[in-house]
Amino acid sequence: MRRDLSPVGGEQVIIDLGERSYCIDIAAGLLDRADAFSGLPSASVAMIVTNDTVAPLYLERLRSSLAPHYRTVLHVVLPDGEAFKTWETLNRIFDALLGAACDRKTVLFALGGGVVGDMTGFAAAAFMRGVPFVQVPTTLLAQVDSSVGGKTAINHPLGKNMIGAFYQPQRVLCDLATLDTLPERELSAGLAEVIKYGPIADMAFLDWIERNMGALRARDPRAMAHAVKRSCQIKAEVVGQDERESGLRAILNFGHTFGHAIEAGMGYGAWLHGEAVGCGMVMATRLSARMGLVDNAFVERIKAVVEAAGLPVRAPVLDEGDNVARYLSLMRLDKKSEAGEIRFVLVDGGGKALMQGAPDAVVGEVIAESCVA
Amino acid sequence: MRRDLSPVGGEQVIIDLGERSYCIDIAAGLLDRADAFSGLPSASVAMIVTNDTVAPLYLERLRSSLAPHYRTVLHVVLPDGEAFKTWETLNRIFDALLGAACDRKTVLFALGGGVVGDMTGFAAAAFMRGVPFVQVPTTLLAQVDSSVGGKTAINHPLGKNMIGAFYQPQRVLCDLATLDTLPERELSAGLAEVIKYGPIADMAFLDWIERNMGALRARDPRAMAHAVKRSCQIKAEVVGQDERESGLRAILNFGHTFGHAIEAGMGYGAWLHGEAVGCGMVMATRLSARMGLVDNAFVERIKAVVEAAGLPVRAPVLDEGDNVARYLSLMRLDKKSEAGEIRFVLVDGGGKALMQGAPDAVVGEVIAESCVA
Repeated sequence: MRRDLSPVGGEQVIIDLGERSYCIDIAAGLLDRADAFSGLPSASVAMIVTNDTVAPLYLERLRSSLAPHYRTVLHVVLPDGEAFKTWETLNRIFDALLGAACDRKTVLFALGGGVVGDMTGFAAAAFMRGVPFVQVPTTLLAQVDSSVGGKTAINHPLGKNMIGAFYQPQRVLCDLATLDTLPERELSAGLAEVIKYGPIADMAFLDWIERNMGALRARDPRAMAHAVKRSCQIKAEVVGQDERESGLRAILNFGHTFGHAIEAGMGYGAWLHGEAVGCGMVMATRLSARMGLVDNAFVERIKAVVEAAGLPVRAPVLDEGDNVARYLSLMRLDKKSEAGEIRFVLVDGGGKALMQGAPDAVVGEVIAESCVA
Repeated sequence: MRRDLSPVGGEQVIIDLGERSYCIDIAAGLLDRADAFSGLPSASVAMIVTNDTVAPLYLERLRSSLAPHYRTVLHVVLPDGEAFKTWETLNRIFDALLGAACDRKTVLFALGGGVVGDMTGFAAAAFMRGVPFVQVPTTLLAQVDSSVGGKTAINHPLGKNMIGAFYQPQRVLCDLATLDTLPERELSAGLAEVIKYGPIADMAFLDWIERNMGALRARDPRAMAHAVKRSCQIKAEVVGQDERESGLRAILNFGHTFGHAIEAGMGYGAWLHGEAVGCGMVMATRLSARMGLVDNAFVERIKAVVEAAGLPVRAPVLDEGDNVARYLSLMRLDKKSEAGEIRFVLVDGGGKALMQGAPDAVVGEVIAESCVA
């Protein structure tokens, strides 16, 4: 373990990965607590990476909390949005690091949502072949999913997250208070990843989400705290067993195979990642039904909870000509595909997920149905 | 270990890194032996990455040897030279992989020198967060140094190898016959890295190099075989103890701190990496003398063997104004620097290296002396 597990108050979840273990601290107000940042690898320089939406809200507050720990606190502000999850933007982090003559002890802090976290993590993995980094996620999606587990990446014009690294942070600090400033649409997008953990791992959690959707959308602090904690616990359990996605971990991609096709097909940023995943989960559940794993009532249940989260459930038409072929060709580029066969994450309705291929004809029916249903 | 250690004839050196262990096969003619490529991770697609100098010589031969093992053997040919060790060139590998819908079982083969090996390795590390790769080094420098040990990288305008990963190959295949086509200048550049292993680790090897310099420059097969094998053995020993350069491994950078400044200051490609390292070793030995570690006779000895290898021993003037300041500022960007202090690899004259800082004034004297001596 990299540090004493001295909780700074609030909840704590451990990601157990041997010498790469770290903890997720979950509490309101962490951003303003200098003690939340103690015990990290010693360094004289810290570099905060954030975006132009988050910077006005939280950059100075994080800088103040880091000031007691570092001689110099630098920052770089990137343009906000999935469309900027590119090499060009990543290179601005390298330019900033090298321009300030940073060395390989420099600690990077990712302050923002999933895009900032993924890019900062990959920058940390690649800068001088690896410097430490800390995740300070400010969106629900990042707190419950992308900041945890060490997947880092940028997009390539031909596919999402195609270039990246498995590289674990030193710590994840989820300040629940930052969720108060989240736009409604981003909150819903984050709820997609919360919902995900139910059907793949914990049906009791799905029950809880359904019962508490009102409280979650109203950002009730206790409901948010539980949603973030339980999501992180499930993710920690899965990642602890399969850090580099050689098997089990792929179940965390429930809804993502269809979702990535939607994101790429619509152009990155048109749909939020969580929106595409929400719709993708409905499609993946529909496919599970066609493959005989769940009944139609379960499809309706997933559709209802996704809809209740404020997420789209009707799939977009990606090609006015041959829409099914367009979906299939985008999905064949998915990282889970092998030798051209798309591997889907399907669910059994009892809290278990399984990886499976499916005939193109059946997948095509699901796509066609989902674009009108 | 990833495979049975069935030697395909010739010498074999093991890099012992637990589950990331692999072997280096060293023999003439390996490129044409399909059996040299058996036992690698199973895949249906292989992608050869090479450059426009090496492709006409060896691409078809490697392709023939891979053909029995893969359904499809793709290739991408990059422009030759350190000046192309950039993101733009790296991206051509990603474009080729994604354009051909390669999946994360695809095996990459680096066919060429250090630049091709470093870029292919980083591409393998980052593509879909990691695919297997094999080094098939065709230059002396790559066979004795860069293909072994898992350092991969590209350059940034502000520094050499600043963006990369520690990522181990599945195997290294050193076909000694490929050295026959190496231009004289490249052979000398490779000898710089061979010479390096003497002063940092094995004075008897330095004696051997001095005695056999004629045979080495004449590419005598037995001399080359020994030089490659002994170099790989020393590198294997060091890397086995410190894969990620947290300490010991840095001694392999003897001559590289000054050398990188020369390369960056002259513009990548003006001096070959090995030429800069050769000159850099003379400078580092001079600094060792000024720091009281070796006598002047040892400086002359290193200078003589570097010169005998056909390498430059006089340092270039990088700035007609303040040359020393230019060297120092370039060296401060070295990855070994910490908090602005340059860390040099010095030698003790008895086969040991040590990491140490040095006063700017003393370093400046070494630079000034080396530009005229």
